[in-house]
Amino acid sequence: MAVIINLDQERNRPTETALDCLTEMVNDDLVRVNEIILQHMESPVALIPQLAGHIIAAGGKRLRPLLTLASARLCGYEGRHHLGLAASVEFIHTATLLHDDVVDDSGLRRGQAAANTLWGNKASVLVGDFLFSRAFQLMVTANSMKVLDILSSASAVIAEGEVLQLLTTNDPETSEAAYLDVVRAKTAKLFAAACRIGAVVATRPAEEEDALESFGLNLGIAFQLVDDMLDYSAASDTLGKTIGDDFREGKMTLPVILAYYRGSKAERQFWRRTLEDMEQEPGDLEKAVACMKRHGTLDDTVERARHYAALARDAMAVFPQGTMKEALLDVADFCVERAY
Amino acid sequence: MAVIINLDQERNRPTETALDCLTEMVNDDLVRVNEIILQHMESPVALIPQLAGHIIAAGGKRLRPLLTLASARLCGYEGRHHLGLAASVEFIHTATLLHDDVVDDSGLRRGQAAANTLWGNKASVLVGDFLFSRAFQLMVTANSMKVLDILSSASAVIAEGEVLQLLTTNDPETSEAAYLDVVRAKTAKLFAAACRIGAVVATRPAEEEDALESFGLNLGIAFQLVDDMLDYSAASDTLGKTIGDDFREGKMTLPVILAYYRGSKAERQFWRRTLEDMEQEPGDLEKAVACMKRHGTLDDTVERARHYAALARDAMAVFPQGTMKEALLDVADFCVERAY
Repeated sequence: MAVIINLDQERNRPTETALDCLTEMVNDDLVRVNEIILQHMESPVALIPQLAGHIIAAGGKRLRPLLTLASARLCGYEGRHHLGLAASVEFIHTATLLHDDVVDDSGLRRGQAAANTLWGNKASVLVGDFLFSRAFQLMVTANSMKVLDILSSASAVIAEGEVLQLLTTNDPETSEAAYLDVVRAKTAKLFAAACRIGAVVATRPAEEEDALESFGLNLGIAFQLVDDMLDYSAASDTLGKTIGDDFREGKMTLPVILAYYRGSKAERQFWRRTLEDMEQEPGDLEKAVACMKRHGTLDDTVERARHYAALARDAMAVFPQGTMKEALLDVADFCVERAY
Repeated sequence: MAVIINLDQERNRPTETALDCLTEMVNDDLVRVNEIILQHMESPVALIPQLAGHIIAAGGKRLRPLLTLASARLCGYEGRHHLGLAASVEFIHTATLLHDDVVDDSGLRRGQAAANTLWGNKASVLVGDFLFSRAFQLMVTANSMKVLDILSSASAVIAEGEVLQLLTTNDPETSEAAYLDVVRAKTAKLFAAACRIGAVVATRPAEEEDALESFGLNLGIAFQLVDDMLDYSAASDTLGKTIGDDFREGKMTLPVILAYYRGSKAERQFWRRTLEDMEQEPGDLEKAVACMKRHGTLDDTVERARHYAALARDAMAVFPQGTMKEALLDVADFCVERAY
């Protein structure tokens, strides 16, 4: 009974704390991962660690490497290969961010000036390539062809997702299904791979690999849905995100897609002018948010996220109860709760 | 005696033919490699094969995959892993080209419109990432951790070289040594890796791996030196290269570096205005070429290339005489002779 009460308390803690809790549980590993990241950013070409350090030090939540560390520990892994792989996953993510900065021309990343505005697009592309190569060098040290297969396949899918996103940009007719295809590929696939490789290094049966893949995939979708909602929400202030980035870039995310399909003729014209023709005037972002609120699309985006978080939680049924499993389940909740 | 006469005839054939000859010798393999390339460009996202097809169909010489195929055969390899690896090497090269197009904003690539002018910078970066990921997926199928180590390390060095080149751009004080560092990293390292992995798949001793690495490295340097000379030469017309690309981008290549160091005060001012301050007027490219000719820097660049081609040839001493070895040695000559 005491345990049950504890878990309930856990569930009711402030949202940031679920991630803090997981971070604490794998803290020794995470310290080593950060060391590996710093070591492998090094290069005789000084601009590389400078630029990479800017985006990696900006930090973010280290959510993806955390998932690898926690998944490996959940699977009872006691070796050290998960450390390099966690660093590798973070490098893939960072390379994607650097290329995304170039691509989207967004001024801010994690609340700081994006690397491309400080060092130019050229350097951002090339340092991204460097980090991507380093990711594969790190994978080689883990000596698992299966891991290399999973992460190289995930990388190809991420690139496909990014191209797909490019094709839906400025297209107000983008369907929710097409949007979900983008989210699965560009975001959720790396979450899925980050989790799955935890089971692979621990040489656990396919059933556990699949469970962790499913957990990661659904967690990733929930995470991105909330991220896209936060791009239109005042809650972004505290997260260091710029509000309205997606709007200014004409990106079709779920809050907009739902507002477009639910909208009046006049509203649809508004979306076409601002996101298809990219003719944006002062006050348009506020109008866009008002329109979303009128149709409840921000709340509904969070509701969709809640659905995927539930799928993520249920995918973990194959694992016995334990503190690491509980911590991972709490992270699924956290991905939704950070919306508030 | 008859054999010796034959070899001499080989040496005196028109320059393009040395590469044609090697191509013929591994033609069955090359056909398979082209099939693998086409298969692995596929994606449900149609823009990816479209854009990748544009640059890969543009073709170039397939020099790097040819080197992998020929090196493997030279080492007596009779398996099939070299095919996927040759495709992998071409994908790494193509990804680099796509990112280089974005980076340098050059309008033409291999005599055709560059991908970024047709589809935009965004798509070029992302399809480059896709091909880079595919390269690693192909490596996984060859099931050699050693090959993965060699090619992931080479990729990191290439990115370092590209960043280094960025840092020397617009700097007329760039030394020949700094330029050579760039060339070794951004170009020659992939040539070296392409050759070395031929020995690796054939599980040959380290001595042969090293010999092929050295052959590829020096061949790559010779190739790039001549490439940089051709950027200022009328001979470029026939090669589908735009003349003056490097000049317009303020790139410091050897013909310019030598002209700057050998130049008068007035000439140095000219180089600083055009390449450092990027204030270029009509007729400046012609002036630049005249200045290079005055100081003999185009010819001397080819002479430097000849030196590295000789190093490449001599590195091959460990291999016994044979038609494949002869064909590779001829390619070293070809890399220099195409200057004329």
